[in-house]
Amino acid sequence: MSKVVRFGVSLDQELLEKFDRLAKERNYTCRSEAFRDLMRQELVQKQWQEGKEIAGAITLIYDHHKRELVNKLMDIQHDFGALIISSQHVHLDHRNCLEIIAFKGSPREAQKLGDSLKSVKGVKHGTLSMTTTGKDI
Amino acid sequence: MSKVVRFGVSLDQELLEKFDRLAKERNYTCRSEAFRDLMRQELVQKQWQEGKEIAGAITLIYDHHKRELVNKLMDIQHDFGALIISSQHVHLDHRNCLEIIAFKGSPREAQKLGDSLKSVKGVKHGTLSMTTTGKDI
Amino acid sequence: MSKVVRFGVSLDQELLEKFDRLAKERNYTCRSEAFRDLMRQELVQKQWQEGKEIAGAITLIYDHHKRELVNKLMDIQHDFGALIISSQHVHLDHRNCLEIIAFKGSPREAQKLGDSLKSVKGVKHGTLSMTTTGKDI
Amino acid sequence: MSKVVRFGVSLDQELLEKFDRLAKERNYTCRSEAFRDLMRQELVQKQWQEGKEIAGAITLIYDHHKRELVNKLMDIQHDFGALIISSQHVHLDHRNCLEIIAFKGSPREAQKLGDSLKSVKGVKHGTLSMTTTGKDI
Repeated sequence: MSKVVRFGVSLDQELLEKFDRLAKERNYTCRSEAFRDLMRQELVQKQWQEGKEIAGAITLIYDHHKRELVNKLMDIQHDFGALIISSQHVHLDHRNCLEIIAFKGSPREAQKLGDSLKSVKGVKHGTLSMTTTGKDI
Repeated sequence: MSKVVRFGVSLDQELLEKFDRLAKERNYTCRSEAFRDLMRQELVQKQWQEGKEIAGAITLIYDHHKRELVNKLMDIQHDFGALIISSQHVHLDHRNCLEIIAFKGSPREAQKLGDSLKSVKGVKHGTLSMTTTGKDI
Repeated sequence: MSKVVRFGVSLDQELLEKFDRLAKERNYTCRSEAFRDLMRQELVQKQWQEGKEIAGAITLIYDHHKRELVNKLMDIQHDFGALIISSQHVHLDHRNCLEIIAFKGSPREAQKLGDSLKSVKGVKHGTLSMTTTGKDI
Repeated sequence: MSKVVRFGVSLDQELLEKFDRLAKERNYTCRSEAFRDLMRQELVQKQWQEGKEIAGAITLIYDHHKRELVNKLMDIQHDFGALIISSQHVHLDHRNCLEIIAFKGSPREAQKLGDSLKSVKGVKHGTLSMTTTGKDI
């Protein structure tokens, strides 16, 4: 646990007021907590840009009746076996599946996995959440 | 399965070349597949904006040694019991956890859940992936 | 929180000694905690026998290269959509998958789901864990 | 893929009839498939007894309002970080949680993890599913 420091920031009052409204809307109990989050967000982006070890999640929505698609997605995941930790599968309705894949590894590999999965014909929507392993943050 | 249609798009050659490079980089086998994805991305955003039933995932990175934090996160999740389907927990190392929460419901509730979880003191990083239930897409 | 009661049990000393060794081996801090667990185990079995609402998990081990198998498993799961909450998928190696399906509902339906999945040709091993929703226990 | 062999088994007719009824009840399409499952079940048990690398799942039911319990369970899981792959968490109702922990490693460690988690005061019910990594089965 490191020492807590305090410092001043000068900025336009209007910008501060807008930011305070947003922070309140987003449930932050104080302005400092909102600032800490912004700063950490930048640090996480830096980890991804610098190729440090990162973590994240990929979401996929697809119709499981498309047989080739299901098998293709599974093959790609096994090819990235070292990156993927586990995945969570939710049967949204009789047709649609939500699959969420947790991963840890290199940003380049993660991006490649995300692109490979999302570009499979029949995937209705895909997202790639970039987060951190929690180290150095 | 609906009928496949074909249509023309006119645009600047330079823009098309840049887009084709990007599509190739991202593993798309053809330009049409990349276009379909862009269009679906817009439709998903519309579902979120219009308050339709949506699905998605929240990622959280935190240090499980912070006792109050762990309990707070669990309380919030039980308060949003109707929205949350299940969550996946990965022990990244002895300190850091990656938690991924799958949800389905109203965009407003999902946003509120995401904001509540991310603003808990001690959460190192949080993301909210907005996707779809797959209906009408 | 209900009142704590104390009562006596008479039994053969040899049996008690064996049980105490087992309880110690299994990490129980005291004999009463071990007894509480035995009693709850009986209550959970009763919930299953009486057709009360129960919860549980099914594990499946299979080779994802068997295409028909993968699709068959997914179809069965979507047919039991009301019972299944979500599933967790782990890529054990390039061939083998561990799938764990969480469910809540009627014991009869759960047994039927477990039997249907385990009997799919190509499933190497399957288990059905019978537990409780935590109500009335 | 190995060669399919056929062999005869001699047994009491009554036993065979009982077994066939059971196999039918359990959805097996033919007697051979039911036999294959029995044989694999024995092989999985052998892997556990001989200390080979195995896989499995632990289920836990608990009331998340018991703060010390939640933190204790998380500490134990982080102590067995090398064994645990990921866990799945379902909020059964406002009080009760179903947690399912997927693991791979040594049978002895798995048993120790299961015993440690199940014996935590406040855990209402716990199960340990013993399965295989799929190798040599």
